[in-house]
Amino acid sequence: MTAWDTARRARDTRLHAAARFAQGKRVAASDATALLEAVLRPGDRVCLEGDNQKQADVLASALASVDKARVHDLHMVQSGIVLPEHLDVFERGIARRLDYSYSGPQSQRIARLLFAGKIELGAVHTYLELFARYFIDLTPQVALIAAVSADREGNLYTGPNTEDTPTVVEATAFKNGVVIAQVNEIVDKVPRVDIPGDRVHFVVESGKPFYVEPLFTRDPAAITETQILTAMLAIKGIYAPYGVTRLNHGIGFNTAAIELLLPTFGEKLGLKGKVASHWALNPHPTLIPAIESGWVSQIHCFGSEVGMDDYIRARPDIYFTGADGSLRSNRAFSQTAGLYACDMFIGSTLQIDLQGHSSTVTADRVAGFGGAPNMGSDPRGRRHPSQPWLQAGQEADPDTPAALRRGRKLVVQIGETFGDKNVPMFVEHLDALKLADKLQLDLAPVMVYSDDVSHIVTEEGIANLLLCRDKNEREHAIRGVAGYTEIGRGRDPKMVQRLRERGVVLRPEDLGIDPLDADRRMLAARSIKDLVRWSGGLYAPPSRFRNW
Amino acid sequence: MTAWDTARRARDTRLHAAARFAQGKRVAASDATALLEAVLRPGDRVCLEGDNQKQADVLASALASVDKARVHDLHMVQSGIVLPEHLDVFERGIARRLDYSYSGPQSQRIARLLFAGKIELGAVHTYLELFARYFIDLTPQVALIAAVSADREGNLYTGPNTEDTPTVVEATAFKNGVVIAQVNEIVDKVPRVDIPGDRVHFVVESGKPFYVEPLFTRDPAAITETQILTAMLAIKGIYAPYGVTRLNHGIGFNTAAIELLLPTFGEKLGLKGKVASHWALNPHPTLIPAIESGWVSQIHCFGSEVGMDDYIRARPDIYFTGADGSLRSNRAFSQTAGLYACDMFIGSTLQIDLQGHSSTVTADRVAGFGGAPNMGSDPRGRRHPSQPWLQAGQEADPDTPAALRRGRKLVVQIGETFGDKNVPMFVEHLDALKLADKLQLDLAPVMVYSDDVSHIVTEEGIANLLLCRDKNEREHAIRGVAGYTEIGRGRDPKMVQRLRERGVVLRPEDLGIDPLDADRRMLAARSIKDLVRWSGGLYAPPSRFRNW
Repeated sequence: MTAWDTARRARDTRLHAAARFAQGKRVAASDATALLEAVLRPGDRVCLEGDNQKQADVLASALASVDKARVHDLHMVQSGIVLPEHLDVFERGIARRLDYSYSGPQSQRIARLLFAGKIELGAVHTYLELFARYFIDLTPQVALIAAVSADREGNLYTGPNTEDTPTVVEATAFKNGVVIAQVNEIVDKVPRVDIPGDRVHFVVESGKPFYVEPLFTRDPAAITETQILTAMLAIKGIYAPYGVTRLNHGIGFNTAAIELLLPTFGEKLGLKGKVASHWALNPHPTLIPAIESGWVSQIHCFGSEVGMDDYIRARPDIYFTGADGSLRSNRAFSQTAGLYACDMFIGSTLQIDLQGHSSTVTADRVAGFGGAPNMGSDPRGRRHPSQPWLQAGQEADPDTPAALRRGRKLVVQIGETFGDKNVPMFVEHLDALKLADKLQLDLAPVMVYSDDVSHIVTEEGIANLLLCRDKNEREHAIRGVAGYTEIGRGRDPKMVQRLRERGVVLRPEDLGIDPLDADRRMLAARSIKDLVRWSGGLYAPPSRFRNW
Repeated sequence: MTAWDTARRARDTRLHAAARFAQGKRVAASDATALLEAVLRPGDRVCLEGDNQKQADVLASALASVDKARVHDLHMVQSGIVLPEHLDVFERGIARRLDYSYSGPQSQRIARLLFAGKIELGAVHTYLELFARYFIDLTPQVALIAAVSADREGNLYTGPNTEDTPTVVEATAFKNGVVIAQVNEIVDKVPRVDIPGDRVHFVVESGKPFYVEPLFTRDPAAITETQILTAMLAIKGIYAPYGVTRLNHGIGFNTAAIELLLPTFGEKLGLKGKVASHWALNPHPTLIPAIESGWVSQIHCFGSEVGMDDYIRARPDIYFTGADGSLRSNRAFSQTAGLYACDMFIGSTLQIDLQGHSSTVTADRVAGFGGAPNMGSDPRGRRHPSQPWLQAGQEADPDTPAALRRGRKLVVQIGETFGDKNVPMFVEHLDALKLADKLQLDLAPVMVYSDDVSHIVTEEGIANLLLCRDKNEREHAIRGVAGYTEIGRGRDPKMVQRLRERGVVLRPEDLGIDPLDADRRMLAARSIKDLVRWSGGLYAPPSRFRNW
C-alpha cells in the first residue's frame, strides 16, 4: 500500500530528534546550531529569512556553524542574500544550490562565488515569483525566520517588519515543513499575532533585536541638482499629463527627489490630490514632507524602514497598522499591489541599452532583481481600466479599437546620463550579457525589458517609448535623451528633431522647465535633520545618517 | 493640528455602537442585521465573502435585510457574486457600486441589473487584481467573512476553505476596518488558527455550515468522445513536446478529460513523472486517478471542493494541510503561483474570435473573469527559466538572441468547435464587444487576449499561434482548427495546408492519433462512482452528483 504521509512522518522524526534541545517550543540561543543539526537533512530546501530588510541573523550564524559532515548540500530558497553568513554556508559546503531574488550588499561576493562554481545557481527571481515557487516546486522543508517576540505557544509578533514571514511560514508549515523562529524575547502575551503559534515549531530566544538593513533611506543632502531636474521633468512630463495616482517608487536618489518636490514644485503645478496619492511603497523617510502636506491618502508597505516606526505609529490614516499600533507590512501583498493595482513604476537603473533593456548587473556585481521586474512589467492579466493606463495604451496602440485595446502600465526609468563615478548609463550592450555568457545562464539578468519600458527620463529630457512606431524610432528616442554619452553622440540630430516635433522626445523647455530652476532649495527637505523636523521629531534616523 | 487617526476613531465609534449587540466578540445570529446597521455607514466599501466557493451566507442575508434608510449606497468590493442576496442588496438600494471578479451562477441576473442601471459598475477584475486593489484604492471599511469555528478570542478556523479570507482580513483589519465573521460554532479551542483573533471584531454564531458551491466537480459520465479527442491532442501535442510539469487546469470537461487520461493514455505515452506533476489547482475530483497512480507530486489549492475533504486529509504528501489535518487553501497565493510558477494554463472558453481573443461573456450573461485572465496571461515580470517556457519563447521569437529572449507561458484554449446547444465556439466578433457597447464600458470583457494565447485545441487539431508570423497566418491557424463553423468554412485550404506543413496546424494524424480511438473506455474513471472507488471511499460527492 502506498504511503501518503511520508513527508509528515519525516517532519515528525525531525521534530522528535530536535525535542531534546527544546523546552516546549523554546530553545536556548546556545543550542541553535545543535537544533539545526537535529532538524536539517542533506539536500533540504531551506528558507533562511533573508528579506531585503529584516534578517534572521542569529539563525544565519547558527546555520553557518553546523557540522558539514551532518548537514550539507542544502538548497537555499530565500529572497535576500544580505548577510555574510548567507554566503558562508556556500563557501563552507553546507549549501550548494541557490534560488534567490536580491543580493544588494553581497553582490560582489556572490559574483565571485558564482564564478568560482561554489554556488549552483537555480535562478534569480523577482520576489513575488520566488514566493510563487514556494507553493509549486520550491517548497521549503525548513524555514528559519525572525520575529520580535513570541509567547509560549509560539505565536509570533513581527512588529513593523512583517515582510516575507507570513508567506514563508505558510508555504513551509502547511506542507509538512519545520518552522524555527528567532525572537528577541519571549513574552506572556504578544502585542499582536502576526504568525499563529500552531505554524511554529521552535522558538530561539536571541536576546537581541534581529538585524535590519536601512535600505530605503536616502539622505536629501546627497541629492544633486541634476537629479532635481530629472525629478521636475518626471512630475511635469509624466505624473501630471497621465494623472498618476497609484504608484510605486524605486529606491534611488532621483525618485527621492520627486518625493521631496511634491510639496514644492508639485504644489505650484496644482497637482495636490491629483497625483501620487495611493502608494505601494516602503516607508521612505523622504516621503514625510509630502505626507505632512496632505498629498498622500494611503501607503501599503513591503517592509518597514529603520527609524520610521514612531512616525508610522502616529499616522494610522496613512499606513496599514495593527491593533498594537505599529506597521503591518507584507511583501507578497505589496508586490501584488505594485503589479496589479498601480499605474506606474518609476525607478533608477545602472545601464540602458539601445533597445531600452535595462539592468543593474555589472561585470563583477550580481545584485539580483528584488521587486523591480515584477512592478516594472506590464501586467497583461490586468482587467480594470484607469485613466493613466488607458492613456498609455492609447499612445502605444492608437489603431486597435478602444474596446479591444488594453491599457499599458507606465514603466519609467529615470537617471542621469552619467551616473556614479561618471559611468555612462547608456551602453551599446548590457554587462548583463557578458555575465550570462560567463555563467552560461539561459537568460541575461535584465531588470526591465525594453517592451515594458514606457519612458526614459534624464536631465536631457523624456523619451516616450510608447509613441515610437519602430525599432529605429525607439533607438533614436533613447539616443535623444542620452546626452553626451557615446550613445547620445551617436544620434542623428534630424531624426531626434522629428521625434521631438511629435512629442516622442521632450526637452525641459518643451515642458516649460528652465534647467537653472533645478535648485536644491526646491527640495522640501534638504537634510535628514529637515526630515526629522517635518516629522515633528517622530522620525528617528539610524546613527549613520545623523551628523548633528 | 491635523488629525491622523480619523479612520481609527471612526472604527472605534462603530465598534462602540455595535457593542450592545455583543457579549465580548460574540453576537447572536438573530442580532446580525442590527449589528450591521450599527457598524455600517452609507457609502462604505464592504467586502462580503463572496469567494467563488465558500459563502458568508448568513451575513449576506443579514445585509440584505438592513434598513436602507440607515445603510445605503454601499460600494461592494468582493470576489464572487454567487448568492441571490449578493444582488438583492443592489435591487433594494442598500448597495450602489460594485467591483468584483466572478459571478458564475448569477451571471444572467447581474447582466439584467447592469442593463437596468441598478448597479454602478467599477470594474470586473481577475481575483489577484481585486486583492491587489484591496491594499491600494479599494480597501474595505467593513469585511463580512465566513469560517467554520471561532474561539472566545475570535481566533478563526476556516477549515479547508481558507480561500480569500486571510487576504480580505489583512486588508481590512490593518487599515482601521471592522471584521465580522460568521461561524458555524463557537468552540473552546479551534483546531488550527487560520485567522488570529486580534484581527476579528465580532463573531456571529450561525449554527449551521456556511454554503459552499461545488464548482470544480465534473462528472466523468458527461465527458464526450469529442472532448476525449481534444484531451488526447493536448496531451500528445502540447504536454509531451514541451514537457509541462507545472500547470493549472480550468474547470471545463475538456481539462477533466485530460486529468482522466493521464493514467491511461498518458501512461502509454510514457509521460508519467515527465508532465503534470506540480499543480496550482482546486481539489478536482477528476484528478484522483492520476494522484492514485503516482503522477502528482504536489498541489496548491485556491479553495477546497465539496466532498474532497477526507480524501485530502488522507493525502498530505500531495496537498497543503494544517496541523489539524485538513486542507489549507489560499486563493491569493495559488493565483500568484498560477501566474509566476506555472508554465501552462489550459482552459475552455465560450467564444474565440478570428484574432484569437476569447471570452465567456455572452449577450445576456456577465460571468466575470475569476482567475483565468491572471493565469492565462504571459507574466512579463517572470525571470526564472524552465524548459517549456524557453521552448515556447524560442518558437514565438526565433530571431532574438537567446540571452535577451524571454520565454513564453503556454496559454491553451481548448474546446469543441461546436459547444453546448451546438453554438459555434469560433465567431467573427465576440459578444463581449456588444456588451461593452451596451454598458459603455472602457474595455470589452475579454477573458484571454490574443497575444497571450499560445495554442488553440479543438477536435480538428491544434493551432500553435506561437509559430504564426503575421496576422494572416494567425487567422488561418485559427480557421484551420475551427471545423465546420462558419469561421472554419471561411478558410483558404491552401494556406491552412502550408501552415500544416510548418507544424503550425497539427491534425490528429500528424500526432499519430486516430480519432476513432477517442473512446470513453480510455477514461480512468467513467462516473462519479468510479472516482469514489479510486479514492478508496474517501471522496464523498455532493448528493446532486450521486445517482446510486
